[in-house]
Amino acid sequence: MKYKRLREELIVLRLETGDKIMESIMKCCCDAHVNCAKISGIGAGEEFHLAVYRKNKKGYKRKRFKGEHEIIDLNGNITLKDNKPYIHIHISMANEDMKLYGGHLEEGTITATAEIFINIIDEEKINRKYDDLVNIYLMDI
Amino acid sequence: MKYKRLREELIVLRLETGDKIMESIMKCCCDAHVNCAKISGIGAGEEFHLAVYRKNKKGYKRKRFKGEHEIIDLNGNITLKDNKPYIHIHISMANEDMKLYGGHLEEGTITATAEIFINIIDEEKINRKYDDLVNIYLMDI
Amino acid sequence: MKYKRLREELIVLRLETGDKIMESIMKCCCDAHVNCAKISGIGAGEEFHLAVYRKNKKGYKRKRFKGEHEIIDLNGNITLKDNKPYIHIHISMANEDMKLYGGHLEEGTITATAEIFINIIDEEKINRKYDDLVNIYLMDI
Repeated sequence: MKYKRLREELIVLRLETGDKIMESIMKCCCDAHVNCAKISGIGAGEEFHLAVYRKNKKGYKRKRFKGEHEIIDLNGNITLKDNKPYIHIHISMANEDMKLYGGHLEEGTITATAEIFINIIDEEKINRKYDDLVNIYLMDI
Repeated sequence: MKYKRLREELIVLRLETGDKIMESIMKCCCDAHVNCAKISGIGAGEEFHLAVYRKNKKGYKRKRFKGEHEIIDLNGNITLKDNKPYIHIHISMANEDMKLYGGHLEEGTITATAEIFINIIDEEKINRKYDDLVNIYLMDI
Repeated sequence: MKYKRLREELIVLRLETGDKIMESIMKCCCDAHVNCAKISGIGAGEEFHLAVYRKNKKGYKRKRFKGEHEIIDLNGNITLKDNKPYIHIHISMANEDMKLYGGHLEEGTITATAEIFINIIDEEKINRKYDDLVNIYLMDI
């Protein structure tokens, strides 16, 4: 994992073979003192753990995708929960037949590379606040 | 629906259970006087109305997705048509099996939340102009 | 193909019926002297050539999608390889049934339109460097 600050408010993050996506983004945010940001990227990986929200469960249904997938779009934001970076990412990914699967990203491991841009918006901190109706932490704006 | 201006040129928009996506974005744009912008976001919803362009029809084929889907990527732009904001969004979304569907978004209703960033680019207004060849309103640049 | 510089660091690119996506973006980058950028867009096209990375091949598996597809998300970056713009884009696209397919974009042809934003980040040039482990050109940061 390597990152570089391109501008005051823009970081490019390159992940390498074996890097865990969520763990690496968290490390980058802590190291570079990023509190709030938009995040987007592409790449290729395997061992993805995804989730989709279900109303009737007031929670997530989970699934593991073991095989290699092209990361078509990794898209989301970084906000603050209990004063620590909270990473919320949705991902779309292509299997060998180029069919797409996706969901809320819990974790995934890079095979070839990932090229991720982190657009920092620290001027205004956005905190997460628990919402009882949906049983998730929403942006408190 | 709640929004907050993070910077002069950046708005974060949070949609809530029951909010209609296109209607809410339009309300936000009118209220915050946004004319031209890039837009991107994630979330979860249901009752999606999607369309895909067909050359031979010079128009759209439509389909309704009643069930819950995770919004993997909501991506597009806001420009001006007849001096009013014109919202052009394509969406990708995951069903319960995490298979992805998507198209040109006509409308959809939020279940859990949506976290949408609106990057304002009002310095240069972009208008829509009818194009007879494709029978849609193109960016007039 | 038409483009307009909206701000110092932002270009909007509109592709038209028959325009080749990668060829047009390359033309725009050369013409507007763009070296490094983030890129994102939506549209509709046909004749897509996609690829997905395979570890065991240390290379790409390729597939051609002849029919019309809605471009749900075109996402990636522009960096420098041998002092020339190097375009790295992943794409997701919907067929007539609104099922999504996608991969690393090698080429595609526009049917209706494409609306692409190029966010220039030329302050810091990013070069590509060959990596033997994965047999592709990675961002050299």
